[in-house]
Amino acid sequence: MSNLICSNLEIKNNELYFGGRSTKEIASKYKTPLYVMDEVTIRANCRKYVNSLNKYFGSSAKALFASKACSFKRMYEIISSENMGADVVSVGELYTALKANVNPQELYFHSNSKTDEDIEYAISQNIGYFVIDNIEELDAINFFAGKKGIKQKALIRITPGIDTHTYEAVNTGKVDSKFGFPIETGAGEFITGEALKRENVELKGFHCHVGSQLFDSDVFVRSADTMLEFVAEMKNKFGFVTEILDLGGGYGVRYVESDPYIDIEDNIRQVAEFYKKKCAELELQEPSVRMEPGRSIVADAGITLYTANTVKIIDGYKNYVAVDGGMGDNPRFALYGSEYTVIAASKAEEKCDFNCSLVGRFCESGDILQENVNLPSSIKRGDLIAVLTTGAYNYSMASNYNRIPKLPVVMLNGNEDYIAVKRETLDDIIRNDV
Amino acid sequence: MSNLICSNLEIKNNELYFGGRSTKEIASKYKTPLYVMDEVTIRANCRKYVNSLNKYFGSSAKALFASKACSFKRMYEIISSENMGADVVSVGELYTALKANVNPQELYFHSNSKTDEDIEYAISQNIGYFVIDNIEELDAINFFAGKKGIKQKALIRITPGIDTHTYEAVNTGKVDSKFGFPIETGAGEFITGEALKRENVELKGFHCHVGSQLFDSDVFVRSADTMLEFVAEMKNKFGFVTEILDLGGGYGVRYVESDPYIDIEDNIRQVAEFYKKKCAELELQEPSVRMEPGRSIVADAGITLYTANTVKIIDGYKNYVAVDGGMGDNPRFALYGSEYTVIAASKAEEKCDFNCSLVGRFCESGDILQENVNLPSSIKRGDLIAVLTTGAYNYSMASNYNRIPKLPVVMLNGNEDYIAVKRETLDDIIRNDV
Repeated sequence: MSNLICSNLEIKNNELYFGGRSTKEIASKYKTPLYVMDEVTIRANCRKYVNSLNKYFGSSAKALFASKACSFKRMYEIISSENMGADVVSVGELYTALKANVNPQELYFHSNSKTDEDIEYAISQNIGYFVIDNIEELDAINFFAGKKGIKQKALIRITPGIDTHTYEAVNTGKVDSKFGFPIETGAGEFITGEALKRENVELKGFHCHVGSQLFDSDVFVRSADTMLEFVAEMKNKFGFVTEILDLGGGYGVRYVESDPYIDIEDNIRQVAEFYKKKCAELELQEPSVRMEPGRSIVADAGITLYTANTVKIIDGYKNYVAVDGGMGDNPRFALYGSEYTVIAASKAEEKCDFNCSLVGRFCESGDILQENVNLPSSIKRGDLIAVLTTGAYNYSMASNYNRIPKLPVVMLNGNEDYIAVKRETLDDIIRNDV
Repeated sequence: MSNLICSNLEIKNNELYFGGRSTKEIASKYKTPLYVMDEVTIRANCRKYVNSLNKYFGSSAKALFASKACSFKRMYEIISSENMGADVVSVGELYTALKANVNPQELYFHSNSKTDEDIEYAISQNIGYFVIDNIEELDAINFFAGKKGIKQKALIRITPGIDTHTYEAVNTGKVDSKFGFPIETGAGEFITGEALKRENVELKGFHCHVGSQLFDSDVFVRSADTMLEFVAEMKNKFGFVTEILDLGGGYGVRYVESDPYIDIEDNIRQVAEFYKKKCAELELQEPSVRMEPGRSIVADAGITLYTANTVKIIDGYKNYVAVDGGMGDNPRFALYGSEYTVIAASKAEEKCDFNCSLVGRFCESGDILQENVNLPSSIKRGDLIAVLTTGAYNYSMASNYNRIPKLPVVMLNGNEDYIAVKRETLDDIIRNDV
């Protein structure tokens, strides 16, 4: 029972239940390896943001789903029915959202490296906002908006210079970043002046994103503080009235028991309290707030189910349990050494006294799902194994390494279950081979 | 000129040529980002192995292409026309090889974690050899071969306990590995005895693989030494005559100038010399040798062409050049910090005095192609950038992170060029979304 890090998990009859459903039944119906997601949890997470933002920041505030955490058509249907917009970081995410009938005006196009084709396509699709990352992009947007005869709404991505002390790969708010324009070097002010000069660009405000998997309650307060100071400077300097301030995403989720809980509603309340006070101090009209949760919308709404293929005991060294998936469906341990909680889903009440490395089927020693896992000593070929909190950055980062097809995503919704993304076939794998 | 690490590269008219062809012309014809491979180089690399193995080990020796380095239909057509077999590590690689009309008897099925479905499928396709990694697999092969009424040929994967001092993720020959059966613990002897008892399994010999990106000329000699001692023990213990000894793969390639050259022909000559002497000493009938080159067949036969989208100078910190690809098409820097050589392909003769991080378009700070790259200070949006030696583990490890379509593979062959793998489309990306 000690491993149950999320409230949508329970153990009954020696078995793991997720979203109220038997993992053995789901695995038997859809086969492993399998991503399972719970629509009820996704919707609850969406509502936490939407309701808190409306309650504390007012009705113009909006939560935008950070697509990169988990992008497929059904996800956009769910989040848009929950009154969230979305940020997209590529034409691929944009295309997926449009195919799910998301209103393009609710989409914000991020990315540090947009091509002319990307920009022209997004404008042709009537996208709501660009989040401008660099001056080359500003000029291209101005050009293609002019070509279409429109004024394109845009935000500018600002790097506020906040070190979040998270690990390198997700730390994007410090000055030295490939993303955005630092305030410290004067680049933020420079690009604001430039954007205001472009006749086919309608600057609506600013965006920042300081990192992800954040638990410090003051990170968004610090971001808001720095960004509102910048908003005030831009007003003084250019007379520019910021209509939208996008504070980005980054609230952390619980992968393992030692990860803290974070009360998102209370955190948003604190940020809003500070925000209003700061705007009053600076005599600013309050910019409409955006937040961009991704991981915290989907991570705990997902688990991955695997079947054990082999148990290998290397006397005097280490034990290995190898499953039917691995770094192709979850590259986060290989990339970052990320921690996850592992449960023997079909033997969930048995004593876990067999210490092992949970490894994958990919032909690489680095193909590890988790080190130092404790499983029941009866674990054997055919047993069901669950890796928890895999709703974010698992499906979205999946590869076809070793030409292994991508897993399907099965969605649970109370007593219903349905396929949101179909399993790749061998013919899908060779589809583009000539 | 100092950056030209492979003989298929040259600089003419301020431009990089690859396989004798203008990279600007290829990029203009097929668009970037783009994998370009040179069939002439692939074939030359194949012949180096095939000819050396035949010359020094005799005509029964065989080179098997390690598919995981680069698997698509055209690759199998090329390697099989060069008289190479292949190792496959999944049903996906097997299926691809079969669709390229490779003789299934020339295929060796690796993998540390095969499912029953994998095993039954491979047997139904008349695969030549299984490389048995664990006892659960042995039993499953015995069962499904029996079901089909055949005796299935197999090798056993042995871990010889050789530490190659390469980095962790590719170091597979030491005792503590998810792969194979260690000699040291007695597991190798145990499984040999078991395999000989299974009536539907025809044990033909042993396989080992001690690592990859190896430059030490003695690694294969040490492997052969340990493995032949083991072969002799199995003869003494069980009267088992080893027909095939597969020494695996692992010769290194040059990613950067400081990587050494390795003379593969001379290395194989040294291994063969030792091998014959050792077999004579142990009074063994010489087992027919297999080697499994992957990276060294394709790595230097490939480059990736990108277009720069933005140049970002962060005063007092660092410079960034962002291109239209990144960790989705080459995850090896993100995974291992792998080194690559970068050239401004359209400005190849200009002085390189602009130090920068070459970063990708993916929405992640860790999306770096290479740190500390020197490019011409005139580098700007639209310039062509080549990353060299990307023929191995780039296409094969590619993901659709950020829903960005996978790049095509364009093959050069003297004056010809053709598409070997088509570019993924946006409709490919959403194909399995329900």
